[in-house]
Amino acid sequence: MCERAHTLATGLGGVNSVVYSDGVTTSGAPRRSTVKDIAAAAGVSRGTVNRVLNGGYVSPEARAAIQAAIAEVGYVPNTAARNLKRRRSEAVGFLALEPHTVLLEDPNIGAIMLGANAVLSLAGYQMVSLVIDSDRDTERVARYLSGGFVDGAIIVSARAYDPITTLIGQIGLPAVFVGHPPDLTNAIPFVGIDNVGSARAITQRLMATDRRRIGMIAPALNRDSGVDRLTGFREALGDRFDPALVAEVPHYDYAGGVAGMRTLLDREPALDGVFAASDAVAAGAMQVLREAGRDVPGDVGVVGFDDSSWADRTQPPLSTVHQPAREIGRRAAELVHRQILGDEDVPGSVLLPSPVVWRHSA
Amino acid sequence: MCERAHTLATGLGGVNSVVYSDGVTTSGAPRRSTVKDIAAAAGVSRGTVNRVLNGGYVSPEARAAIQAAIAEVGYVPNTAARNLKRRRSEAVGFLALEPHTVLLEDPNIGAIMLGANAVLSLAGYQMVSLVIDSDRDTERVARYLSGGFVDGAIIVSARAYDPITTLIGQIGLPAVFVGHPPDLTNAIPFVGIDNVGSARAITQRLMATDRRRIGMIAPALNRDSGVDRLTGFREALGDRFDPALVAEVPHYDYAGGVAGMRTLLDREPALDGVFAASDAVAAGAMQVLREAGRDVPGDVGVVGFDDSSWADRTQPPLSTVHQPAREIGRRAAELVHRQILGDEDVPGSVLLPSPVVWRHSA
Repeated sequence: MCERAHTLATGLGGVNSVVYSDGVTTSGAPRRSTVKDIAAAAGVSRGTVNRVLNGGYVSPEARAAIQAAIAEVGYVPNTAARNLKRRRSEAVGFLALEPHTVLLEDPNIGAIMLGANAVLSLAGYQMVSLVIDSDRDTERVARYLSGGFVDGAIIVSARAYDPITTLIGQIGLPAVFVGHPPDLTNAIPFVGIDNVGSARAITQRLMATDRRRIGMIAPALNRDSGVDRLTGFREALGDRFDPALVAEVPHYDYAGGVAGMRTLLDREPALDGVFAASDAVAAGAMQVLREAGRDVPGDVGVVGFDDSSWADRTQPPLSTVHQPAREIGRRAAELVHRQILGDEDVPGSVLLPSPVVWRHSA
Repeated sequence: MCERAHTLATGLGGVNSVVYSDGVTTSGAPRRSTVKDIAAAAGVSRGTVNRVLNGGYVSPEARAAIQAAIAEVGYVPNTAARNLKRRRSEAVGFLALEPHTVLLEDPNIGAIMLGANAVLSLAGYQMVSLVIDSDRDTERVARYLSGGFVDGAIIVSARAYDPITTLIGQIGLPAVFVGHPPDLTNAIPFVGIDNVGSARAITQRLMATDRRRIGMIAPALNRDSGVDRLTGFREALGDRFDPALVAEVPHYDYAGGVAGMRTLLDREPALDGVFAASDAVAAGAMQVLREAGRDVPGDVGVVGFDDSSWADRTQPPLSTVHQPAREIGRRAAELVHRQILGDEDVPGSVLLPSPVVWRHSA
């Protein structure tokens, strides 16, 4: 690692002193110069400029021209510069901020990891998954992320006001969220699905099976996905929405489905439809219905969300919303990799299609 | 990272040049000097010697005495020395060598990770999980493990002749296997359960329910756990063992259970007992039995292995063998941490209790 860092510093010669001496935290210029300006001034392509900024090989002539152009246009590097200073690890962190639920209950997490790893692996990056399961973990992972051990990060299950979410914004680490934290105060891109639209669509499909009293088991209302799925449910029901038929539970897990279903049956014995906001939740709900002697879908139609491995293993198999977990992982990895390479045109968000998959539980 | 490495090199002063200049690959001395010899020669405790070897603080006087003693006894460091040269990361790798099965199907992996992380976190180590899903991954992870990015590694699902298993032995990285690779040619400790004894116990318990024709769905016969569970099954049945009633399948997964159960029903329609070598396999088997109109446990008794989250979510809940997954993770982390600290008395294996948990599927 040290050899690499030295090579980079040496390789860039004067660029370091000209550009980075005090430039990183400077701001307030009327218009900030860009890689494009440097390329135009040096008479080279943007790709060649990016190669210099990222420590790649260019001819000595091109390097000299680019160094002169950087001084001429007054380039103040932002992300690219920070990447460069940090660029020693060729590793990207993968963090799940809700380890108990995600690691123990969510079959999607493995697919997201495999998708992200496939893309990073091809690009030559080592993906390192970091568990955050305590305040001690949070502090140590924060040091790890700040300490040059990774060049970027993919964050799953970001929550409102999470310290890691805040830190990533502060240190300017190239990062991507899987899902959209509600307190988004920085420009970190995210990859996800349209939770509102998908929840509305599956609720409408459930309504079309002639249900009179439809409830929802609503986990994770401190997260965007939880809030958005509830919003979609409410929009679909419109005037028929009854807040008493929303059972809040903490997590997207089987235990949440068990607790939520019990609450709903207590409040409304005549319930004949349930939107469970994840497949694990739906599986727990179906277990309670089975124990209560209710036939699914005969007495109660149940729909889930995720299309995870739970979905075709419940009895009957679940009608649900398909989350393209592996593709989400791939796209997240692509976006973080592009930022690491200094790409300044990374999209702020990528929403992937998430169609309803209709099976036999409703 | 660089600062840390420099500090260590400086802090050890002459020790580096005396001991490590060409010592690491040397061998053939009649009896290799140990930390104990250094401690005796220097008149200090072994703990003090280990602190010097691991870059910790000791008084200048003790350090000088220990350096002289190291030269005097001709100490050739093995693991501790290699640790020292590598000791920059304060990270420990966590590797699953069968990512598709483990990450997508095995609920135990999350519990093992959380258990290991809890111990490493308390010790101030960052656990980094590395996915190996292609030959490219294998090569890159091998470079990562060799390159000083981690101080040790926990390896789950080691398989015969896996290149990572081989590499870990070659480079002398402090490591622990979860489970015991059949081609164990090195002295890497492992943490696990008695697969033979546990498989024998649950098969005997199944036999005690008056079954006449008992089959086994046997996954992963290229791994120790797969071979051992088959051995236990055969031992329990004794003369009644019929090789035609063993259905081999590739992985410990739901799909393996589906395929294996179909094979068994084809071969022996009168089958009335099944040992499925994991809970996910048992869940797949029960689905096939359900589709074939066989009642569980009325017509066919089914037992699993793992006591994972599958076990109390099948209908009926599974009789199975309890694997203490979180404790396995904790113990693996303890053993790798002790090696990193230079402990030369780490046990070669730790077997944890794995009792039969009898529910309603047999």
